[in-house]
Amino acid sequence: MAVPTPVCVAVIGVGLVGSEFIAQLLGLPQPSPFRLVSLTSSSRTLFRASDPFAPGADWKAALAASQDTPDLSKLTEQLAGLVSPQQKVAIVDNTSSEDVAARYPVWLQKGISVITPNKKAFSGDVALYDALIGGAAASGAKCLHEATVGAGLPVIATLKDLVATGDKILKIEGVFSGTMSYIFTEFSTGAAGGPAFSAVVKEAREKGYTEPHPADDLNGADVARKLAILARVAAPARGAVLPKLNSYADVATRSLIPAALEGVKTGDEFVARLPEFDEEFGKMREEANAAGDVLRFVGVVDAVKGEVKAGLERYASTHPFATALGGSDNIIMFHTERYSPRPLIVQGAGAGAAVTAMGVLADLLRLV
Amino acid sequence: MAVPTPVCVAVIGVGLVGSEFIAQLLGLPQPSPFRLVSLTSSSRTLFRASDPFAPGADWKAALAASQDTPDLSKLTEQLAGLVSPQQKVAIVDNTSSEDVAARYPVWLQKGISVITPNKKAFSGDVALYDALIGGAAASGAKCLHEATVGAGLPVIATLKDLVATGDKILKIEGVFSGTMSYIFTEFSTGAAGGPAFSAVVKEAREKGYTEPHPADDLNGADVARKLAILARVAAPARGAVLPKLNSYADVATRSLIPAALEGVKTGDEFVARLPEFDEEFGKMREEANAAGDVLRFVGVVDAVKGEVKAGLERYASTHPFATALGGSDNIIMFHTERYSPRPLIVQGAGAGAAVTAMGVLADLLRLV
Repeated sequence: MAVPTPVCVAVIGVGLVGSEFIAQLLGLPQPSPFRLVSLTSSSRTLFRASDPFAPGADWKAALAASQDTPDLSKLTEQLAGLVSPQQKVAIVDNTSSEDVAARYPVWLQKGISVITPNKKAFSGDVALYDALIGGAAASGAKCLHEATVGAGLPVIATLKDLVATGDKILKIEGVFSGTMSYIFTEFSTGAAGGPAFSAVVKEAREKGYTEPHPADDLNGADVARKLAILARVAAPARGAVLPKLNSYADVATRSLIPAALEGVKTGDEFVARLPEFDEEFGKMREEANAAGDVLRFVGVVDAVKGEVKAGLERYASTHPFATALGGSDNIIMFHTERYSPRPLIVQGAGAGAAVTAMGVLADLLRLV
Repeated sequence: MAVPTPVCVAVIGVGLVGSEFIAQLLGLPQPSPFRLVSLTSSSRTLFRASDPFAPGADWKAALAASQDTPDLSKLTEQLAGLVSPQQKVAIVDNTSSEDVAARYPVWLQKGISVITPNKKAFSGDVALYDALIGGAAASGAKCLHEATVGAGLPVIATLKDLVATGDKILKIEGVFSGTMSYIFTEFSTGAAGGPAFSAVVKEAREKGYTEPHPADDLNGADVARKLAILARVAAPARGAVLPKLNSYADVATRSLIPAALEGVKTGDEFVARLPEFDEEFGKMREEANAAGDVLRFVGVVDAVKGEVKAGLERYASTHPFATALGGSDNIIMFHTERYSPRPLIVQGAGAGAAVTAMGVLADLLRLV
């Protein structure tokens, strides 16, 4: 068989995930099925279609030395110029930018595949989502986003397989936030007593497990975005009754931010004031303990009832959400007609640069 | 985008899994990306390239009415005649036949993709395995076998992604046999006492969870075959130290068949005599209980020590193999450099016609 022409890859976003992704990409065995032809950071861009980066290349120095500032419109034209029946082109968006996400439909229409861990396009405005699905269908370019839920865990691919092979999705439920997973496995172990809620959040923040402002985790928005993504992927399933979400804001999300702390500007102030609410959280823990339960922040896509919701729930101390979690594990249970009464379960680290980059690279490898 | 030409599909084996697979295939939304052009049972064959089966077709009646007896050489020529740059062709082998498996290299060389839950080619003679890998590489045809391990669970695909993206595989361990899973979750719960081993095996047999001759499960060969498959897929991983297995017989397998019952001809006699060994199994359970452990029949691919082994092991009663299993669940843990210290876990039903057929169909969908 003739060796296929390597896929041209342009990377946008060279932060933690982006840098790790580039390291994994350039570390593939040679000859690689990819040519890394472009890099774009928040302040610099490089386009080297005729001189792609080799394994071991000092791409950071090259990008730092570039005089070109980011210009996504120009990049679009440059990449579209490479697309041909013999030449696949992919953009890997390792940012969390709305602006980058807004360009996916155009890229896809022009035949440029999009691979990304960026949740914005898949969980945001339904018009953008529909446009990117339409763009991909029109050109045959792929839009793959495994790493938007569970990082490198096989979550989206598994759901797509269940849907495509005609299984009936009953319910997807899980712990979708590594931060929430860590906080509640520390806070609510099922044993009496335990650390104060504010102390757990403070420690999680110091370890870098939360956003700089912990309210950005505790508001549940990250979980709501992941649920919106899953609900949209599950919607075409046989017999699924799911609402058409205008955006992740339609997910019924019970924030953990105490009302009095809504709008607190800084993370420092937030953690300083959180102890005022330790009694309230402690009482929820006591009530759960008394019933033999633990507290977990979970997300549910119920394709029978037509509900998509995120919030703090109680689970029996024998339930996998109580027994199986540790670290910042995610766990996702697929309850389906075929996987019934016992679900299909995927579990493991759901955040971190290495596993997120791996999810992105695995998607990219599906293009070849 | 032009709609791609539907892939021509020939099915060999129309038993439990085969019938379910055909039902799922013909149940795909229209227009289907596949044309079902041929069926072969143990006694009949049909080739209808110009008149493929439609949704709702009574394929069983059509096959029963055929006057043609199976002829895999003729089928090979018929299908090879369909292959062209515009026309993909796939054989779905739903048998467990060595004879069918032996033909994979030729089919792949001729550009016919092979999709199968049949473990024989992937766990048997290494010469056959190398030949089919070589055949696929030469023609570009695909050989996919997700359903050989864990049925529809994402096991092979996950392992391939870990390997292809450059993760270092440390250890894969799991409960790979639904039958063994059922038997030991019933027999060894961690609580004192419990049913006799022979009673559990007898009940499992009556429920249809074992082979007609339970020794065919208790010998561990099914687990050894799955481990050989995983070891071969994991072998190219970065830093993996794994022996080149001549066949699954090279897997260090500790059979559970009492020496005195080796060679017992019938399943009836086997279960009638098994009570003689209840004391022995009961003693193992007591010893495990005394240490706070349970017994599980597990398989391990250790890519650091270079070991591939199957046997009865003890696990702490807090370990997922003790707490998380039920029914005839499989559970597979991938310990890797990236998924460390906590593994990536996949769990769920690892046997059954519906989930096995789904694993096969999901693979087939990867061709389009």
